[in-house]
Amino acid sequence: MGTENETGKRIYDLAGKMFPITRSITGDGVRQTLKILDNYISEGTGRHFELTEVPSGTQVFDWTVPKEWKIRTAYIENEKGERIIDMEKCNLHVLGYSLPVDEWVSLDELKEHVYTQADQPDLIPYVTSYYKERWGFCMSKNQLDSLPEGKYHTVVDSELFDGSLTYAECVIPGKSDRELLITSYTCHPSMANNECSGPALLAELIRYVDSLPDRKYTYRFVLNPETIGSITYLSRNYKKLQEKTDAGIVLSCVGDDREYSIIRSRYGNTLADRSLEGVLKDLPDHKTYSFLERGSDERQYNAPGIDLPVVGFCRSKYGMYPEYHTSADDMSLVSPEGFEGSYRLMTGWINAMEHNEKYLIKVLCEPQLGKRGLYPTVSKKGSYDEVAAMRHFIAYADGRNDLFEISELTGAPLEKLIEVTDTLKDSGLIEW
Amino acid sequence: MGTENETGKRIYDLAGKMFPITRSITGDGVRQTLKILDNYISEGTGRHFELTEVPSGTQVFDWTVPKEWKIRTAYIENEKGERIIDMEKCNLHVLGYSLPVDEWVSLDELKEHVYTQADQPDLIPYVTSYYKERWGFCMSKNQLDSLPEGKYHTVVDSELFDGSLTYAECVIPGKSDRELLITSYTCHPSMANNECSGPALLAELIRYVDSLPDRKYTYRFVLNPETIGSITYLSRNYKKLQEKTDAGIVLSCVGDDREYSIIRSRYGNTLADRSLEGVLKDLPDHKTYSFLERGSDERQYNAPGIDLPVVGFCRSKYGMYPEYHTSADDMSLVSPEGFEGSYRLMTGWINAMEHNEKYLIKVLCEPQLGKRGLYPTVSKKGSYDEVAAMRHFIAYADGRNDLFEISELTGAPLEKLIEVTDTLKDSGLIEW
Amino acid sequence: MGTENETGKRIYDLAGKMFPITRSITGDGVRQTLKILDNYISEGTGRHFELTEVPSGTQVFDWTVPKEWKIRTAYIENEKGERIIDMEKCNLHVLGYSLPVDEWVSLDELKEHVYTQADQPDLIPYVTSYYKERWGFCMSKNQLDSLPEGKYHTVVDSELFDGSLTYAECVIPGKSDRELLITSYTCHPSMANNECSGPALLAELIRYVDSLPDRKYTYRFVLNPETIGSITYLSRNYKKLQEKTDAGIVLSCVGDDREYSIIRSRYGNTLADRSLEGVLKDLPDHKTYSFLERGSDERQYNAPGIDLPVVGFCRSKYGMYPEYHTSADDMSLVSPEGFEGSYRLMTGWINAMEHNEKYLIKVLCEPQLGKRGLYPTVSKKGSYDEVAAMRHFIAYADGRNDLFEISELTGAPLEKLIEVTDTLKDSGLIEW
Repeated sequence: MGTENETGKRIYDLAGKMFPITRSITGDGVRQTLKILDNYISEGTGRHFELTEVPSGTQVFDWTVPKEWKIRTAYIENEKGERIIDMEKCNLHVLGYSLPVDEWVSLDELKEHVYTQADQPDLIPYVTSYYKERWGFCMSKNQLDSLPEGKYHTVVDSELFDGSLTYAECVIPGKSDRELLITSYTCHPSMANNECSGPALLAELIRYVDSLPDRKYTYRFVLNPETIGSITYLSRNYKKLQEKTDAGIVLSCVGDDREYSIIRSRYGNTLADRSLEGVLKDLPDHKTYSFLERGSDERQYNAPGIDLPVVGFCRSKYGMYPEYHTSADDMSLVSPEGFEGSYRLMTGWINAMEHNEKYLIKVLCEPQLGKRGLYPTVSKKGSYDEVAAMRHFIAYADGRNDLFEISELTGAPLEKLIEVTDTLKDSGLIEW
Repeated sequence: MGTENETGKRIYDLAGKMFPITRSITGDGVRQTLKILDNYISEGTGRHFELTEVPSGTQVFDWTVPKEWKIRTAYIENEKGERIIDMEKCNLHVLGYSLPVDEWVSLDELKEHVYTQADQPDLIPYVTSYYKERWGFCMSKNQLDSLPEGKYHTVVDSELFDGSLTYAECVIPGKSDRELLITSYTCHPSMANNECSGPALLAELIRYVDSLPDRKYTYRFVLNPETIGSITYLSRNYKKLQEKTDAGIVLSCVGDDREYSIIRSRYGNTLADRSLEGVLKDLPDHKTYSFLERGSDERQYNAPGIDLPVVGFCRSKYGMYPEYHTSADDMSLVSPEGFEGSYRLMTGWINAMEHNEKYLIKVLCEPQLGKRGLYPTVSKKGSYDEVAAMRHFIAYADGRNDLFEISELTGAPLEKLIEVTDTLKDSGLIEW
Repeated sequence: MGTENETGKRIYDLAGKMFPITRSITGDGVRQTLKILDNYISEGTGRHFELTEVPSGTQVFDWTVPKEWKIRTAYIENEKGERIIDMEKCNLHVLGYSLPVDEWVSLDELKEHVYTQADQPDLIPYVTSYYKERWGFCMSKNQLDSLPEGKYHTVVDSELFDGSLTYAECVIPGKSDRELLITSYTCHPSMANNECSGPALLAELIRYVDSLPDRKYTYRFVLNPETIGSITYLSRNYKKLQEKTDAGIVLSCVGDDREYSIIRSRYGNTLADRSLEGVLKDLPDHKTYSFLERGSDERQYNAPGIDLPVVGFCRSKYGMYPEYHTSADDMSLVSPEGFEGSYRLMTGWINAMEHNEKYLIKVLCEPQLGKRGLYPTVSKKGSYDEVAAMRHFIAYADGRNDLFEISELTGAPLEKLIEVTDTLKDSGLIEW
């Protein structure tokens, strides 16, 4: 078990380092997080993220980069001076982008500024108000219901000012300038699966790609705050991405050990769909969500006029697991095993993409496999089935189908077909 | 209830006025019927049908316009001088296009000229012999079986002469010269659902379309005898219709209150199919029949070389309900509720067609709905789902999909999407 | 029964004549077999097969024509001089392409050279070693297990020498130079279904095609050893076949009376697929196998770059029935009834192909069937359904669909539609 999930353990530990930081869509929390990740990749590879700061007020398509939010402290005291909630204990207690406040209020007034999750009464929900200025707190419904009448001292020591939004990019060149895009987001406070898991896996994948000696593809890794960050990034880069990108994946909620999920692209028919679905289909089980159930940055990559071939990859999909957007999405929800599974899936995808070609067999009629040692020399009932994956690959290696289409047409698992391509290349029967 | 089905009641009353008239594929019954309908539309709109008379003997494609049939009276008397049947009581008693006769015949001879419906022994069937000259009567099988031996006086006072076939047209122009076609038939004697219901609804729809202030489409309403009438109409108009028609619907059996039905076009893939099916899919239930189950004038509109985008719309489909083509298809089979449902369905279709465009959202990436008051300002679990129809519309408003395709792709009901298009147009996010 | 299966009985008898001969992929067994078949077709038609001999060592695509194998005798004697097996009794006892041997060996040594079928212990399996030189025998597992310790005299009197590979072709011209290809193989020793049935049916089909007075198609009949033979044949003929062939069928295992089967082409979308599937669909039942379950010469005809529209036709599919490639595949497995069924199916297919056109009705709107005596003159409930196949044919005779597509679209059986085409041609409503 230990060595089996060694890489998963490394990713888990990296996510754990990111976990305590109070992030939002702008601010130093994002910058600290990116520093941790940058240290991790530079240790393994000598590579660094390239950071971009986009000033508040910048127009990005239909949106405007918001003010930067600095949050120093936030708590509520009762009349006895006891802090009934404090963001030092859990940074979900402060409404994201809360205005500063320092007031004594009645219980009724307090309730107008406190957000709870009625159907999960013992959890603190994650709530934000990015684009309308207000102050507020989050707490469990049980706690709110238990508060006695009285005065409460509400303190948010925050600041909204002209600063900037931060995104990070790391491009690792390959033999071709065709690109694969892998992206995740850095904008939620202490949530493990729906925040830390994606960037941590992405950092490990940078190490993996760096280690591939003869990579065909150029890899573009991007980290940005969700929605406003990907819109900002795309407003400056979408034409380049449209020219170069063969397929892209948004990583989100990749650290738990429940099912594997794909969120398909707008029409579900891109190479990103076919390739990630192709890898997933060889697992015992997985869930396929249509674009109607989108929710993360695949929304922007797939928007009309952007039209990039990008899908989402999750274990439990955001929005579908009970701990989502609450204080229960903590480090106990993710695990080395969970990360290891996601890592294997994603490196399997990279490996398949690196082997992906429209293959064309170099002989007419079936090649004579026997003379190459690839077919049993005694021919009897069943001989023919022993080499089924190879025979099927050859039958459909007609220049029309890529690796994923051959796997789909023949039912042969991708891993088996990748072996076959290596064997046939060695035998001179295919080229690529 | 009363006001709820006010329009349905008007249509029901109009159908009731048409009911007693003895119609056939030619003759004064058709002309009287068209006069009633013309009065109805001119009251509401000042508009009139344009009538065309096509002389007997005119070649129309593979057919010849038949002689005009005038029927004055038809009955059978027994030896006591009692009229055992009389078309004054039910005009289905005379074989359609019967030659004149005035003879005393034996029971055996009589039976050679009487048509019954063996599986519905107490009903009078509707039978015709348009293209082969013979005389005859229809009666219930029970009555025929009960007739004693004896002589019977058979009287049909009819005439076949060179006259003309009559069809009616009413075109209501819109901003565009692209057209929607709505058609029904006027050729059956006293049957309520499979005759009176279609023209009566069509007349009400003329009033509705006339009332639309800014209609985009031009509407073409056509009434003709079934088969020979639509062939005649098309022989003179098909090229114009091919140039202009976006979609058409044949109305038949639209007055009962059972299911709703569509009969698809030849390949089931026209805008008429997609649009009417789109409206029907938002009902709790409906039946879809393929073109293999065609039977009314959609046969001619879809014929090879005519190739018009036309479907059939029914409540209970002709041929499928037990009262079809018998004396049981009377005014008790139809109802204000039944007509009201058909009226709402058809005006819903017109409304959807008027809103139908290939929409293109005017910003790149998702628009910021919040700043337009279209998105909750506090973002928490579930916020995103509140505006699902709008988000889905925007995601697929990429210039490739019309309203019906977006409804199909996203599962959002058409009525909801029509609201969304109005909202987004007001917000300047789409144009049309 | 007797006269019912008269043709089946003839085919059965012809297969029976072929059965005893010891065939392999080369040699005199093939030549004797072709002589028997040639006699059969020349008796009925005066036509002959054209034989081609391709020398050993000839390069054919990726393969080399092997040496010719002559086998005179093969047996194993025990110490008492008793022949425990002898290919005089069953020619499956000798390993196909066995080297000569004449040695006394121990039981252990013997076992290294004897092939059995573990899961069918009382049957002699059919085993070959064409492309690796070795000697060997086949026997039932029960017999091998029962052999006592001792010495055994192993005798194979065979010879491998530079000779040639033989294939046969018979082309019967039609009015068009568009071709249908019918092929089978001649390379297995005494097996009835998986060897004799295909060539015997093919010979009968030559008689049938010869008897068609006005055939449209040119028919190409080909017999060759499986795999190496079709590769050899294609290496010399594939360009011509690509230019001319509309559809082709490989006949294999067509003499038993179990199910009917089709093995689809590489993408399952050729006219061969649609036409044979079209004929099969009108049977009470049949099995459809995808190209993933290919196994006979359809493998070569469908190979990338060859790309011919060829499917396989079987009763029980090779590899799927228990007697396959064993001594149980003898003349008791096939029957006159089985052959008769295959013959009817194949002549049904030929008849359908001869009637296959993209039909276009010559009038606009529906033709008036009544005036041609093709529609009931009294019109009542149900009249319309009596001529459903004709009406459906006319509706889809729009120049886009061939006979098989019309059958698929309308659900009308091919035989019924063929009658309709004859009727409508006589009425001048279609031409072809």
